Amino acid sequence: MARPIITLTTDYGTDDHLVAVMKGVILSINPEINIIDITHSVLAHDILDGALTLGLAYKHFPPKTVHVVVVDPGVGTERRPILVAGDQHYFVAPDNGVLSSVYDQSEALYVYHIVSEHYFRHPVSNTFHGRDIFAPVAAWLTKSWQTSAFGEPITDFVRFAIPKPKTSGNILKGTVLRVDHFGNLVTNVTPELVPALLGADGKVTIQIGNGQVSKVVQTFAQGTAGEVVGLIGSSGYLEISVNKGNASRTLAAGRGAEVTVELGEPAIELQPDIPNSTLSST
Amino acid sequence: MARPIITLTTDYGTDDHLVAVMKGVILSINPEINIIDITHSVLAHDILDGALTLGLAYKHFPPKTVHVVVVDPGVGTERRPILVAGDQHYFVAPDNGVLSSVYDQSEALYVYHIVSEHYFRHPVSNTFHGRDIFAPVAAWLTKSWQTSAFGEPITDFVRFAIPKPKTSGNILKGTVLRVDHFGNLVTNVTPELVPALLGADGKVTIQIGNGQVSKVVQTFAQGTAGEVVGLIGSSGYLEISVNKGNASRTLAAGRGAEVTVELGEPAIELQPDIPNSTLSST
Amino acid sequence: MARPIITLTTDYGTDDHLVAVMKGVILSINPEINIIDITHSVLAHDILDGALTLGLAYKHFPPKTVHVVVVDPGVGTERRPILVAGDQHYFVAPDNGVLSSVYDQSEALYVYHIVSEHYFRHPVSNTFHGRDIFAPVAAWLTKSWQTSAFGEPITDFVRFAIPKPKTSGNILKGTVLRVDHFGNLVTNVTPELVPALLGADGKVTIQIGNGQVSKVVQTFAQGTAGEVVGLIGSSGYLEISVNKGNASRTLAAGRGAEVTVELGEPAIELQPDIPNSTLSST
Repeated sequence: MARPIITLTTDYGTDDHLVAVMKGVILSINPEINIIDITHSVLAHDILDGALTLGLAYKHFPPKTVHVVVVDPGVGTERRPILVAGDQHYFVAPDNGVLSSVYDQSEALYVYHIVSEHYFRHPVSNTFHGRDIFAPVAAWLTKSWQTSAFGEPITDFVRFAIPKPKTSGNILKGTVLRVDHFGNLVTNVTPELVPALLGADGKVTIQIGNGQVSKVVQTFAQGTAGEVVGLIGSSGYLEISVNKGNASRTLAAGRGAEVTVELGEPAIELQPDIPNSTLSST
Repeated sequence: MARPIITLTTDYGTDDHLVAVMKGVILSINPEINIIDITHSVLAHDILDGALTLGLAYKHFPPKTVHVVVVDPGVGTERRPILVAGDQHYFVAPDNGVLSSVYDQSEALYVYHIVSEHYFRHPVSNTFHGRDIFAPVAAWLTKSWQTSAFGEPITDFVRFAIPKPKTSGNILKGTVLRVDHFGNLVTNVTPELVPALLGADGKVTIQIGNGQVSKVVQTFAQGTAGEVVGLIGSSGYLEISVNKGNASRTLAAGRGAEVTVELGEPAIELQPDIPNSTLSST
Repeated sequence: MARPIITLTTDYGTDDHLVAVMKGVILSINPEINIIDITHSVLAHDILDGALTLGLAYKHFPPKTVHVVVVDPGVGTERRPILVAGDQHYFVAPDNGVLSSVYDQSEALYVYHIVSEHYFRHPVSNTFHGRDIFAPVAAWLTKSWQTSAFGEPITDFVRFAIPKPKTSGNILKGTVLRVDHFGNLVTNVTPELVPALLGADGKVTIQIGNGQVSKVVQTFAQGTAGEVVGLIGSSGYLEISVNKGNASRTLAAGRGAEVTVELGEPAIELQPDIPNSTLSST
């Protein structure tokens, strides 16, 4: 039988002892667990950033993987710890919306408010539930796989909408969701919203910051050096990129920057308007 | 039987090949070992920083874990390599004080000067004992668990005192030991020294850099945004924090900064004076 | 039987989901694989930097380790994916020269152009072959170890020469290949080229940037604090170092900086001239 897998996604960084402590706690409960880091560089306290990174990564792991997600500005307050089964994976996290992208991708969800304190590390601190609640619950789960043993089913869990573009006539206004390691600007614009992006037939104008995308290409190396191009990245979103350069620096644009896509003549038919969601809980 | 665990704590960073080389050496000796990084971001050549991080992390790992610690500015000089058994864990490190926090937490210690060169990787370099001595000794240890096979017991190992606060009347002067990933200032002040910190009854004034702590709270989210608060962190030390902010930047204070705790009326009884230790070997 | 080992060397960084996705893909194919990071901090798009780091690390892993190397500015273009068996190790990478240091160190090489698409993840993206080709091919390889199942042998693979120093009379001009985590300047000068470096007999003058190396030492701690020294590092190259300091900052010199070694009287016999190679494919 394969060893259980637990992944970790946090905003703890890797310079301190925090991540290692979580791993020690996990291995003390079940030494057979294979622990994989998704990232510990979620922007500090940034639940949306954590939700996006997790949402892009988790599906690639085998079924039954347990994903521990700790972006937890409300640690020690009333916010609940939850255990979620969905999409053939398990998730252990604070109930603050950090699993919103999972909820979007999952057809059937079972969400439990974790209340069984005998699975916690004691005494439970006010400031480090990664160590005291989330890591031990995930580790104990791999011993029994009985989600219902950890708490009570709930349906009023916190969920926010990942920001979506807004269209008006021929104009679609989207947002930069993330700046990746190469400086590529990952937007929330998809070819489902703008099919013309796939055609690369010159009928789309893309503006961002003080710059303009010169063309839509298929892969990074297709632009000339320093050219600002658009492409549909591996996650299915429009990315603004500079060949062998750093689009974020070139365009002085970062997370949250507005990207405007204008369709030329003849107008390409767009999906019905989708409201520009803000971070609101359901 | 569970796979043996080796943890790594170094100041090597993760950009170079050094850490990977240590892992390759370990797995070449015993491929069953589960290698866990504590951190490779110890401040360069900073033995105290390494000692503190290790001291906060190691206890959370299962008994029999082998902790390799390489903060080693004296590599290639007369300083000895040592193997330590204590507190149900094993440690392999240079004898330069980097295990001082382990010594403080362990009741019974067995310290060996590693001399059995047939466990080394040859030729032994002058500059990379992580690869040539510490990693292979740790890996070989997991095959036999015979500490005495590696060298001779010693008692004159290097040990320094972790800096402790100094009290004078109603005033306690402590130090910032570390700045964590969130910018929290982790001090060496504990509630054992200042029980009033637990009460949060307003009878304590805390000053640091050019700022003052407005109140002592239970968890990060309790301050209003931008407020400078104190709290007892998960490791048991007073931390100075800014809710959703970065205390180090806000207060322009970093490692080594002085923190002054003044007790109000009625004076709270303090522990007997504890001298402000400097980094001296025993 | 020991678990198979796959190492990862990329320029992806660890802030995004990319590395985790590769790990998830690998574990979905073979959950027994032990995945070890070499580094994800190869300079972006820098094939030489990736080649050097891999070349310094891979030999320390056990035989049969599979090394996945993704520094791939040409992803999605005509450049071929290759699988290489050599020096008792396996390598999966784009055919862009990133394995050049492996080729230099390996006596017998078997290089395959990967064409068996049923080992790929589908649909294959244009921009993330780490996920769609390199990770799954490496994982499938650990199930059969049949390299020939993945493609066709080729001999016209891309290989460049690692830059070598140039000598002229008593003067040898080398280059800084890398700046390590401590700021040490790792050059391409070796004691095979300049045996006097091993003697430390004062007959060598070393100049770099606007500074001069005062002496050649055996280990880092031998210089006085702040002194610029030279030493033969653990990888066999001349390194310029500042004791407890940062040579790169002190000398304002980085990657690509020229280092001049001048031999005193009596002139030490040098190897025959070695041309200063540029990055050219074979």
